[in-house]
Amino acid sequence: MKLDAWIALTQEQMPARRWMHTQGVRQSATELAERYGADPEQADLAALLHDYCKFWPIERQVEAYQMYGLPGELLAYDPQLLHGPLAAEVARRELGIADEAVLDAIRWHTSGRERMTLLDKIVCLADYIEPGRDFPEVARMRELSLTSLELSLLAGFDSTIRFLLDKGKIVYPLTLAARNSLVDELRSGSNNITDRS
Amino acid sequence: MKLDAWIALTQEQMPARRWMHTQGVRQSATELAERYGADPEQADLAALLHDYCKFWPIERQVEAYQMYGLPGELLAYDPQLLHGPLAAEVARRELGIADEAVLDAIRWHTSGRERMTLLDKIVCLADYIEPGRDFPEVARMRELSLTSLELSLLAGFDSTIRFLLDKGKIVYPLTLAARNSLVDELRSGSNNITDRS
Repeated sequence: MKLDAWIALTQEQMPARRWMHTQGVRQSATELAERYGADPEQADLAALLHDYCKFWPIERQVEAYQMYGLPGELLAYDPQLLHGPLAAEVARRELGIADEAVLDAIRWHTSGRERMTLLDKIVCLADYIEPGRDFPEVARMRELSLTSLELSLLAGFDSTIRFLLDKGKIVYPLTLAARNSLVDELRSGSNNITDRS
Repeated sequence: MKLDAWIALTQEQMPARRWMHTQGVRQSATELAERYGADPEQADLAALLHDYCKFWPIERQVEAYQMYGLPGELLAYDPQLLHGPLAAEVARRELGIADEAVLDAIRWHTSGRERMTLLDKIVCLADYIEPGRDFPEVARMRELSLTSLELSLLAGFDSTIRFLLDKGKIVYPLTLAARNSLVDELRSGSNNITDRS
């Protein structure tokens, strides 16, 4: 299977408005990859597929998630968290994507994780700041994204955490861990981690 | 050793201003215990000892922490987090306190923990709202504390987390876990957990 087929299949998985969002994330991810020295093709592919399963009925998501034996711990949290790990698994098994860096960027695009790779950060950030997004912090995040992936993404995670605190909702612990990890990176100056080995 | 001796020893460990804070926490913890059906003597003793080691030089805290074999993981975080677990250990080994519920309330008074006991909540909350405290959310927390330990303490943890986000500092994961646990309790209506077994 090649890019054209993946594009056609992805478009079928979601309503037109969300396909526009996906196109926006592809554009932002490609731009960020060019700016920060990542591979634009990897960024584009991960961006294309990041929401592949998001608009499946939640029952279908849970069923596929369990069928593929994904970590059950996540099922105790907001169902919105399932679609990233599920899309990575579907991309591997059903679309034939073998690039682990691309699969990781898909897998962690909503929650983040500790010691995110450059590609993880790019896809996660592109999802926050693509041209169709409109929320209070987005202008500042776009501005920060011109000079620091980490500061921009930190502002994004912080806004997500504040939003959940304001709403009295559970904050997924991995998102706090991802955010703390960025604070550590910024403090130690070890930005743009590309190798997790 | 008895209460009078513990009081005299505790007062020796801290400057006069912080002894006033300790007295305030004792007062608030006793009141909360009476309001919510905990043992006022346990609440008073945990409140008395909660900051026993806080004003030791940090080198002495780290040395005692390591000497007593306490979990090393905490040493990677803000040194302000050491004094609770350390005070519980000092209370057990040096002051002869054997009441595990009291030791737990001392141990977890700064960070909180998942599934806090009634006594844990009372001491942690008293530390936030004692009469000498003055921070933006304290008036609302005092008001909430008249009707719900959990809502008041949740407001406290949320204010701590927001403060650390604003400052770009690491948020200790256990504090988020404690906060999420309160959200769960409030949602399921299982307030005032007194038995962790």
